[in-house]
Amino acid sequence: MASEALQEIIAGMRAGGPDFSGDPIKARGDLEELLATMPADPALTYSQVDLGGVPTLAIDSGPANAGALLYLHGGAYVAGSPQGYRGLVAEIGKVAGLPAFAPDYRLAPEHVFPAAVEDAVAVYRALLAKGVPANRIVIAGDSAGGGLTLAVLVKLRQEGDQLPAAGYLLSPWADLGCTVASMESKAAADPSLDPPSLKAMAALYLAGQDGAHPLASPVNADLTGLPPLLVQVGSSEILLDDALVVAARAGAAEVHVQLEVWPEMIHVFQSFHFLLEEGRAALDGAGAFLRAQLGKG
Amino acid sequence: MASEALQEIIAGMRAGGPDFSGDPIKARGDLEELLATMPADPALTYSQVDLGGVPTLAIDSGPANAGALLYLHGGAYVAGSPQGYRGLVAEIGKVAGLPAFAPDYRLAPEHVFPAAVEDAVAVYRALLAKGVPANRIVIAGDSAGGGLTLAVLVKLRQEGDQLPAAGYLLSPWADLGCTVASMESKAAADPSLDPPSLKAMAALYLAGQDGAHPLASPVNADLTGLPPLLVQVGSSEILLDDALVVAARAGAAEVHVQLEVWPEMIHVFQSFHFLLEEGRAALDGAGAFLRAQLGKG
Repeated sequence: MASEALQEIIAGMRAGGPDFSGDPIKARGDLEELLATMPADPALTYSQVDLGGVPTLAIDSGPANAGALLYLHGGAYVAGSPQGYRGLVAEIGKVAGLPAFAPDYRLAPEHVFPAAVEDAVAVYRALLAKGVPANRIVIAGDSAGGGLTLAVLVKLRQEGDQLPAAGYLLSPWADLGCTVASMESKAAADPSLDPPSLKAMAALYLAGQDGAHPLASPVNADLTGLPPLLVQVGSSEILLDDALVVAARAGAAEVHVQLEVWPEMIHVFQSFHFLLEEGRAALDGAGAFLRAQLGKG
Repeated sequence: MASEALQEIIAGMRAGGPDFSGDPIKARGDLEELLATMPADPALTYSQVDLGGVPTLAIDSGPANAGALLYLHGGAYVAGSPQGYRGLVAEIGKVAGLPAFAPDYRLAPEHVFPAAVEDAVAVYRALLAKGVPANRIVIAGDSAGGGLTLAVLVKLRQEGDQLPAAGYLLSPWADLGCTVASMESKAAADPSLDPPSLKAMAALYLAGQDGAHPLASPVNADLTGLPPLLVQVGSSEILLDDALVVAARAGAAEVHVQLEVWPEMIHVFQSFHFLLEEGRAALDGAGAFLRAQLGKG
């Protein structure tokens, strides 16, 4: 039985969650409005920096020399901002014991695939250039940012970069074709997302390019050689099977993967860590997983 | 690159691991010979008890009043014994903080499906009758014992029993039909198991009954309502996809599931915890997962 907190969140999403069904600029506004209701730890400092030419939000969520969390926010590649996600990013930085860096990567429809991948890769390389050891870096992201995290890891491996310590994918959207079974089987249960809206946003990001490209839909990528991956997903998500397919493909490719399916939970339920004990527990578990990977290799 | 310890274990398995290709009585002897090389914590006491009419090995791996680990050993339903597995069972009991009980459930070909399920259910009910709270019990098992663990959980839910706090499946064999893709894709990598041998042992266990029965192949069961499940598997196993399918079906059924795929690891690599750091780490992680579930619900 869903907790009262979860029921209220679901009711709120159903009553007036962000609308991704049409105008992406309206969706941006909707999402920022929702995100503005999320608290961010007031004991931390949120500052603007430039990393590799990409404006980036920096948060002192861990000791300056501990490494770095590179966080790629969600928003279907058309919406979302580091400022909006700063509360979640700060919590992940804290549990991982790392300062956090959330780039304001370029969004569609103004900037189409692979602009987001290029920006994220540039920020990662800028962290290395600043002297942060690769094995002290975690790349993480939610939703589109989770798919983007996987795409960035594949791109870095393809180009021979030093790889980070781990990847952390929260409810990743890793198949822009939206072909998985949960798109239908979980449609009624999911209060946040619907397949037509995802497909519409994918079309804006792709602008005619092939959505099956492994850096656009990394479920299609060869995942061999990737660092350990933590994948968390709610069971009430149309993206449930994206997470399962990522785990299956990663495991088959000899990648260390930990997949967690959280019953009744909704899309990026960790965002509601301040209301949902499951969100808090998932973040704390992620912290344990990520800290265990840091400094290896 | 595989560690030296892993390479030695693989070489040993290839040179003379248990032979499940023909005579099950010979396989029993082979497996006991291998298991006899495994250390068991000498600081613990291993004693024989009767639980629900089933001879059971009891281990004081945790405080007597902490609850119970019910452990179902592997051996393709034709081999294996609590005595042989006592080292592994003791370690799992220790990390979970629970005393352990490993029933000597009846084996094929002398006793066919569903004898093993009936024995395990009887032991679980005997633990409840002794006053152990259901929410302080973990059911765990490896290989055939992992599939059996899942089958027992399904049976208990079907019959309206109070359910335990969690299930822990180590390299579960949950599809006696051996239909998953990893049966072929991982055949060359797996030094322990091969599909023809598994099919031969399944035939002995089923003795003409339908292997698709949900209590024989619990990948076919409705997993709704099951307690949290931890599933660990190596990526060099023909049973890799059994674990993935269990996780997918459990997640779709709103069950809390944590799936871990460990690269390069072989069938029930946790057995080699005293040689492999990955085996030790997997057990320690399992302890954290299980302790977090105890006492809930």
